Amino acid sequence: MNMRVVLKLLGTVLMWESILMIPSLIIAILDNSYEISAFIISIIIIGVLGFALMNIKTNGFQMRNREGFAGVAICWVVMSLLGALPFYISGAIPAYIDAVFETVSGFTTTGSSILTDIEILPRGILFWRSFTHWIGGMGVLILTLALMPSLGARSVFLMRAESPGPSPGKLVPKISETAKLLYIIYAGMTIIQIILLVIAKMSLYDAFIHAFGTAGTGGFSNKGLSVGAYNSPLIEWIITIFMLLFGVNFSLHYLLLKGDFKSILKNEEFRLYWLTVIISIIIICINVLPLYNYSVADSLTKSSFQVATIVTTTGYATTDFNLWPMLPKSILLMLMFFGACAGSTGGGIKFIRVLLLFKAVAYEIRHTVHPNSIGTIKINGRKVDISVMSGIMVFFFAYVATMIVAILIVSLDNFDFMTTFSAVLATISNIGPGFEIVGPMGNYADFSVLSKIVLTCCMIIGRLEVMPIFVLMSPSIWKKR
Amino acid sequence: MNMRVVLKLLGTVLMWESILMIPSLIIAILDNSYEISAFIISIIIIGVLGFALMNIKTNGFQMRNREGFAGVAICWVVMSLLGALPFYISGAIPAYIDAVFETVSGFTTTGSSILTDIEILPRGILFWRSFTHWIGGMGVLILTLALMPSLGARSVFLMRAESPGPSPGKLVPKISETAKLLYIIYAGMTIIQIILLVIAKMSLYDAFIHAFGTAGTGGFSNKGLSVGAYNSPLIEWIITIFMLLFGVNFSLHYLLLKGDFKSILKNEEFRLYWLTVIISIIIICINVLPLYNYSVADSLTKSSFQVATIVTTTGYATTDFNLWPMLPKSILLMLMFFGACAGSTGGGIKFIRVLLLFKAVAYEIRHTVHPNSIGTIKINGRKVDISVMSGIMVFFFAYVATMIVAILIVSLDNFDFMTTFSAVLATISNIGPGFEIVGPMGNYADFSVLSKIVLTCCMIIGRLEVMPIFVLMSPSIWKKR
Repeated sequence: MNMRVVLKLLGTVLMWESILMIPSLIIAILDNSYEISAFIISIIIIGVLGFALMNIKTNGFQMRNREGFAGVAICWVVMSLLGALPFYISGAIPAYIDAVFETVSGFTTTGSSILTDIEILPRGILFWRSFTHWIGGMGVLILTLALMPSLGARSVFLMRAESPGPSPGKLVPKISETAKLLYIIYAGMTIIQIILLVIAKMSLYDAFIHAFGTAGTGGFSNKGLSVGAYNSPLIEWIITIFMLLFGVNFSLHYLLLKGDFKSILKNEEFRLYWLTVIISIIIICINVLPLYNYSVADSLTKSSFQVATIVTTTGYATTDFNLWPMLPKSILLMLMFFGACAGSTGGGIKFIRVLLLFKAVAYEIRHTVHPNSIGTIKINGRKVDISVMSGIMVFFFAYVATMIVAILIVSLDNFDFMTTFSAVLATISNIGPGFEIVGPMGNYADFSVLSKIVLTCCMIIGRLEVMPIFVLMSPSIWKKR
Repeated sequence: MNMRVVLKLLGTVLMWESILMIPSLIIAILDNSYEISAFIISIIIIGVLGFALMNIKTNGFQMRNREGFAGVAICWVVMSLLGALPFYISGAIPAYIDAVFETVSGFTTTGSSILTDIEILPRGILFWRSFTHWIGGMGVLILTLALMPSLGARSVFLMRAESPGPSPGKLVPKISETAKLLYIIYAGMTIIQIILLVIAKMSLYDAFIHAFGTAGTGGFSNKGLSVGAYNSPLIEWIITIFMLLFGVNFSLHYLLLKGDFKSILKNEEFRLYWLTVIISIIIICINVLPLYNYSVADSLTKSSFQVATIVTTTGYATTDFNLWPMLPKSILLMLMFFGACAGSTGGGIKFIRVLLLFKAVAYEIRHTVHPNSIGTIKINGRKVDISVMSGIMVFFFAYVATMIVAILIVSLDNFDFMTTFSAVLATISNIGPGFEIVGPMGNYADFSVLSKIVLTCCMIIGRLEVMPIFVLMSPSIWKKR
């Protein structure tokens, strides 16, 4: 691995991170709150470090696949370690490991929190906490690509490593243009949501916070009761619909802008996603009807919100689904595992992988019945390359294997199985809340430092879809060529 | 699919099933117990049906892959439905679905039980119950192959469909000779275990029962407290060691007979299996030490037994691991998932698949770092074919997907998550006991009929390693050519 290329990349990312802290600083200054100096110190440290690294000479060395993967992993780890500074320096989160947990939870759009009382924190801190969702959702390297096309034509490796899904689609031939378009759609949708939330009588500041959480499919709120605090079905429905929209592959939003409805409706992942969402909502709605005094409207609102928040891996809550019967809980667990669509801001395994894995099973059955048949696996009418398929299968196993290892370590804390299991699943799938102690009304404060480190790793591994972190940990990447 | 070939095969299997009921009948006659007529009626029904089907003319049609897979699936389903007759007719198990559950649990060597009080049942019934473990362990079709080589040279398809593991090894070039050798080793080890148990002061009848349960890695006992009832560390250790031996690939036992120790020690699955077993025992032993008054001997005996019973998917118990801390429980859960070695009588995913999946991940990392490298996946020094790898990956996903569907349906019973999850895992992995309600001291009696049907399907799907049942359910197999 060429370290200079990676460090220069890191410098650029840190430079942007320090710039992106400025809005939070401004809010702190407006409030004249205690975290002003924490932001100033953080901005200076990160900015100076970024500036120094940016100016490393790479002698014209071009980025390759390995620098792309390892570089993305390094950038995510370092920007999380430094992004935690405002929380730590201000004293808002006294333990550094907790501050890192919260920052990683932000950037990876997980939304798990170690905070037991959010509402006592100043607005500048909470703004930064939620803004990390928005930055991490679409990807900080894609942002860098959008704003600094100079990184070179081979930056496709960065996009491949950071974007969720088996094969990131380029909307337009040029990577930097694609990145720009993605961010325009992303920002546009966020602004529309903010406007709608304000119309629904949410304060402008809260609207920003919740739009960031929705857009990034993160789930941080500035209310202890999450979205449930507003007790407004209108707000609930706005957020439900936007969560589901942000869970869709952004290339489909681009097709929508171009007016190509036919391609959207033909998209197999899109169809499976909505089918799953609608069926889940109906089954859960019927199941929890008695809990809402047989009011279909209430039950439908709560079921839709909970399904949307879990399937898109956002993690907002308007009710405590811990109290639901086992079937709705199992459906939510399954949705946690599936996650949203590829190319969206959501986490999890992604629907397209689940779909392709099912197709692989069907293919294997066909092949057993007719051993001489020459079939292929197709999606959206196109043949899927064998290397993509094996990549997906390896991903699936690596995902499950990582979960098993994490569960074993977190078991040391001796919580019940549902807490242990769902904490790991909720972090690796970037959802946020799990069940029992880490349920929608609970938090991650009671875990040991070791478990917090493991869960933090799960969040990054899940967000970067395993491979970049595994590549970074592989000894061969560190060998001199 | 050529139905005549399949029906003729089924006839042979049923013929053998009726013959294999005779020992149980003899015990019933010796005891002059109420189940005599039930056995006689069952033997006649199954025997006549078998004889009729055996005489179907196949017009020289040769078995193909599809007839092999679907045939094995059909044989297992029908022989379970009919094998339940003695339980049902005698009234020992009043509900037919329960009788089928118990029979499938026997043949698939799962060992899950719906019986709440085993000890009131007559000895003939309990003998048949445990003998199904022994028959199912090595496979009833392999038995047929061993005893009736006339089924033809292409019976390799049968072996492929019934044997556990990605690629069943032929010990000697001829299939029927291989089947015979496997059964000689299997019977020999069973007899040695019976002798040792009798020396350890177990009654001859009990020694038969527990040797059947150990050899098939099944786990049915004739005691309510399972092996724990004997309260004898010697018996515990004999069973521990034999469980672990029956969890090893039988081709290694054959190598042992030939004196080829070098090949055994070089076998990668064998090494991973023992390494995992030893590490698990050590960690659990240390963890549960306080529960056994810090007696290393007691703690080691209990840990070793519990690890052996779970990793080999036997399911005997000498202690209630529900009361253990979370880490030992998580380790046991992981071992439930892994299962024993391919080509053994154990269930689960099998160590060789886990090993190959890890190798696939390492391969993918290597390929990401060095995209132009031409590497291969090797095991025991031999290259693994790409079709074997994709078969394993498809198997892994199909296994997990089946589990998810089963969990969703069993959730309707509204038990806690650990009960629901571990019931599905324990049946699909053919282990027997899970956690909480279905724990080692519990049983499956309280599930609804629907759940019992689903769990019964899980047992057969797990035992036949998914594909035969999926092939049977595929519409294309039923089409006329």
